[in-house]
Amino acid sequence: MQSLSNWGRWGADDQRGTLNLITPERTRHALSLVREGATVSCAHRVSYEGAADVPRPPQHYMLSSGDGYRPGEGPDRQACSDYIGLVFHGHIITHIDSLAHFFWDGRLYNGVPAQRVSTAEGATSHSVEAARTGIVTRGVLVDAPMLRGVHFIERGDGVGLEDVARAEAQCGFKIGEGDVLLLRTGQLGQRERTGPVDPYRGGSSGPLPELLPLIHERGVAVLGSDTGNDVMPTGYPRFTNPVHQVGIVGMGLWILDNAWLDDLAEACQARKQWEFAINILPLRLSNATGSPVNPVAVF
Amino acid sequence: MQSLSNWGRWGADDQRGTLNLITPERTRHALSLVREGATVSCAHRVSYEGAADVPRPPQHYMLSSGDGYRPGEGPDRQACSDYIGLVFHGHIITHIDSLAHFFWDGRLYNGVPAQRVSTAEGATSHSVEAARTGIVTRGVLVDAPMLRGVHFIERGDGVGLEDVARAEAQCGFKIGEGDVLLLRTGQLGQRERTGPVDPYRGGSSGPLPELLPLIHERGVAVLGSDTGNDVMPTGYPRFTNPVHQVGIVGMGLWILDNAWLDDLAEACQARKQWEFAINILPLRLSNATGSPVNPVAVF
Amino acid sequence: MQSLSNWGRWGADDQRGTLNLITPERTRHALSLVREGATVSCAHRVSYEGAADVPRPPQHYMLSSGDGYRPGEGPDRQACSDYIGLVFHGHIITHIDSLAHFFWDGRLYNGVPAQRVSTAEGATSHSVEAARTGIVTRGVLVDAPMLRGVHFIERGDGVGLEDVARAEAQCGFKIGEGDVLLLRTGQLGQRERTGPVDPYRGGSSGPLPELLPLIHERGVAVLGSDTGNDVMPTGYPRFTNPVHQVGIVGMGLWILDNAWLDDLAEACQARKQWEFAINILPLRLSNATGSPVNPVAVF
Amino acid sequence: MQSLSNWGRWGADDQRGTLNLITPERTRHALSLVREGATVSCAHRVSYEGAADVPRPPQHYMLSSGDGYRPGEGPDRQACSDYIGLVFHGHIITHIDSLAHFFWDGRLYNGVPAQRVSTAEGATSHSVEAARTGIVTRGVLVDAPMLRGVHFIERGDGVGLEDVARAEAQCGFKIGEGDVLLLRTGQLGQRERTGPVDPYRGGSSGPLPELLPLIHERGVAVLGSDTGNDVMPTGYPRFTNPVHQVGIVGMGLWILDNAWLDDLAEACQARKQWEFAINILPLRLSNATGSPVNPVAVF
Repeated sequence: MQSLSNWGRWGADDQRGTLNLITPERTRHALSLVREGATVSCAHRVSYEGAADVPRPPQHYMLSSGDGYRPGEGPDRQACSDYIGLVFHGHIITHIDSLAHFFWDGRLYNGVPAQRVSTAEGATSHSVEAARTGIVTRGVLVDAPMLRGVHFIERGDGVGLEDVARAEAQCGFKIGEGDVLLLRTGQLGQRERTGPVDPYRGGSSGPLPELLPLIHERGVAVLGSDTGNDVMPTGYPRFTNPVHQVGIVGMGLWILDNAWLDDLAEACQARKQWEFAINILPLRLSNATGSPVNPVAVF
Repeated sequence: MQSLSNWGRWGADDQRGTLNLITPERTRHALSLVREGATVSCAHRVSYEGAADVPRPPQHYMLSSGDGYRPGEGPDRQACSDYIGLVFHGHIITHIDSLAHFFWDGRLYNGVPAQRVSTAEGATSHSVEAARTGIVTRGVLVDAPMLRGVHFIERGDGVGLEDVARAEAQCGFKIGEGDVLLLRTGQLGQRERTGPVDPYRGGSSGPLPELLPLIHERGVAVLGSDTGNDVMPTGYPRFTNPVHQVGIVGMGLWILDNAWLDDLAEACQARKQWEFAINILPLRLSNATGSPVNPVAVF
Repeated sequence: MQSLSNWGRWGADDQRGTLNLITPERTRHALSLVREGATVSCAHRVSYEGAADVPRPPQHYMLSSGDGYRPGEGPDRQACSDYIGLVFHGHIITHIDSLAHFFWDGRLYNGVPAQRVSTAEGATSHSVEAARTGIVTRGVLVDAPMLRGVHFIERGDGVGLEDVARAEAQCGFKIGEGDVLLLRTGQLGQRERTGPVDPYRGGSSGPLPELLPLIHERGVAVLGSDTGNDVMPTGYPRFTNPVHQVGIVGMGLWILDNAWLDDLAEACQARKQWEFAINILPLRLSNATGSPVNPVAVF
Repeated sequence: MQSLSNWGRWGADDQRGTLNLITPERTRHALSLVREGATVSCAHRVSYEGAADVPRPPQHYMLSSGDGYRPGEGPDRQACSDYIGLVFHGHIITHIDSLAHFFWDGRLYNGVPAQRVSTAEGATSHSVEAARTGIVTRGVLVDAPMLRGVHFIERGDGVGLEDVARAEAQCGFKIGEGDVLLLRTGQLGQRERTGPVDPYRGGSSGPLPELLPLIHERGVAVLGSDTGNDVMPTGYPRFTNPVHQVGIVGMGLWILDNAWLDDLAEACQARKQWEFAINILPLRLSNATGSPVNPVAVF
């Protein structure tokens, strides 16, 4: 926690953490990579069913709909609208964690007391609003199943340094400052094919904690994968979520959970190119510990 | 409704409407405009208070927070998470309407029966998912108060052809195919300064219906403003929301409501440049009539 | 549907249906049965977990709680409050159906058009408010497993005329006008012991449609059981829920779903008395198709 | 707080507080008062609009409704159901507070640590479930406006010992053990006629703290009124809600907020009788700090 700490690095009041590494220059450079103008969504479809890995299903109710319309009714009857409610944290919805999502020994990133995230008011510090100008930078994909020649990484197994080394050797990119580092395990795609698994019973793949020093050293701005971003079980008795705990609290690292990376992997494969511009635009939710997002890669 | 119709133009099954006008070439071109890598959010901050123009306030509840933590408690107590629920349509939350939001005489855009948007299942057609790959294209800003030399456009008054003509004459752009056309009235900023107004009683500014033929002719992909995008009262007895009704149902036009354009206006003014790349990335919500968004302009 | 119809019986505007059978005299008589003043709840505990028979779990969020309090903090920090949200219909929450819950061929009870229950406004007719003065009358329990000498009635099997005849012969009561007729299957208790079952796959016990003529003839005011009150599968191709459809729409019968009858059965058994006063007090929810309740029997 | 304390009176584990005073004998006696079988609701209608005194309006959404039905559609389309969500605490919904609603210096009633009411799990102690067998006892009404010859008690003014003394002198009852004591101010009725008032700005009537010793001495089981049950402003710097704080935490007193007492007052007046049986049946909500209720008086 100490050796990788970014506390104080960007000032005592900083709430942006590793997003500070995305300079205008990095944004400009990322967009200069775009040759085609092709866009690919990295969001998992939000549905409204409960499942083994969805204990609190999102809610969707219609306030008005079209099936009640009858010929001749006035124009005020001709609109549809809906209510959407969700707990985005968890293992199914594509979302980004703000730096308010985890704390350690009573402190948030940069030493702020955890009480600042209160039941009554929410994240009065470290809200996702710190990312309101958006994340527009370079993304790189480490497609672990492709690199290992398997369909997907097994639950309980993680993506680590070896996978990254292999990706850098074979995929034409070197992870650098301000990047969104995406690690594909294939787990979410496998879940769509074979059904939901409760990660607290059946385990989960994800990034291995051994990646954290490299993430720190290289200056990764956002870490994402098609998992909840912690291998389960963790094997560390003191940490329930080592990547989140050291990453968010120590490093001020922004983490993208449950990204849908199968379409992106295909797009990379088709082009033999594993770097791209990526846009992650969190909603401007006041006092929130994160936001559902639809990250879009551009080639 | 007829003369501006795009029904059938992109095939009988089309649900993307004017988003079809954003070709990869347009996306690529938009990104080529970026010189600095500076990003500006066009989202209004989501808060949770009711008001005269917020009859159904968004909900925000914490499932776990930091204020209950006590020294020595285990790591499983060191995470915060929240529930967010909202009716995004209305006059306060920045959101994009999918083509399921309005229908006319029982038909959605492209002639699909309105029953396809049902109470039980939501938008089984024309869901916002049609925009899941994101809107990445050129944006242009018509800053009406600046052009007219006023602080804001009065409620009941609209932005129309004259404002657009003036913008094209003075601001160095010509509205073209695939553009996101943003009209600033200053109304939302004025609301922040002087307090909420119920638009059903106090009226609203917005784009005038006279713009629709120009929007059609030029091939605008998305129309947005810092209002609910229909002048109130409308003056048309048969239409409660002429811009939405002709735009969405007839033209398949995607509409961005309640954008926060004051920061953008300042950024444009500072650069004397009213065109930019813009990213609007709707959440991948199944069967929904739109999505809250955080549109981000890049200079 | 026709032969059991109560349409028009209590006037063209009636929305109370069989509750009209609970006269002050019946209420007075029921209370005169009370000898001890002992009360027994017939409500199933509302919890917040999803399950095979709970696709949309109730929601419970705290707006303020006690675990964040620190010595010395002011009195405004010393209160706890919560948000509760639920879909009460279904197979788990004890609730009463108003006459707006079902319709048939486009008509609610008493011939009112089904459109009166609208997506935008809810039950503008036949709301549960019709029962706002409460249901205070005699209850009788037909304890089918006791009468048959089994632990519970199997899913797919129903409680019918023979069970009622046996109860009347052995339990010292005759079902009469204004009664709340409770049928115990033991299914809900069995569910607590052996786990949830999706009734759409695993079936359900409940009252058999053959009871409807007797219910009509005797003037039962409320029918309840520890099930969703329709045997599943029904065996009737034209009816998904014959007891609800004929009962609610035709007879104006109020139905109590998912009552917790195991404690009541024990209380009856201990006293060798299967009649009692019962109070069912629906919340005064405007435009609602029913209400969660906590029915309380008094001996 | 000390002199009125009931801590330990009914055992170290007690969570029922003053409900212990409602013995079967009291219940039996209350029901013996019933002469007519006439029932009167004391619940305020739950509607779904925000207002000055309703910052978080209840939610009501339809999952299925009748306005979409078309002739010939199958029986599975012939049911209506709804979602109801609410924050019942506050100044508008008739509800009962459990003993988890307030704490003092970190302790709930009977000395239990306030942490037992947690953000993550809710009221793991002192939940409203403690009242699951219902409150069936004698109610008495102190109709303060009637006794004073005014239309309603002004906001800021309270109901106190003098009103109670007058009621006992003129209305034929003496407050006794196990009673539900209802104090009518007329404030809620006045609100219906002249519009909502934010009690934090415009004040509130309610029971005066001077009543607490009498409530203690006489053994009142439940205190209710047609207000939020604390005069606002309170005039006590250390107490935001003296009646709630001393009542709930010290005495274990159950409090009924926002009861609708105008119909009851009329029923009492008509009979010249201000005592009656009353039923208050809280929903069996696990881990909740109270419940919306529909209290029903029986004459």
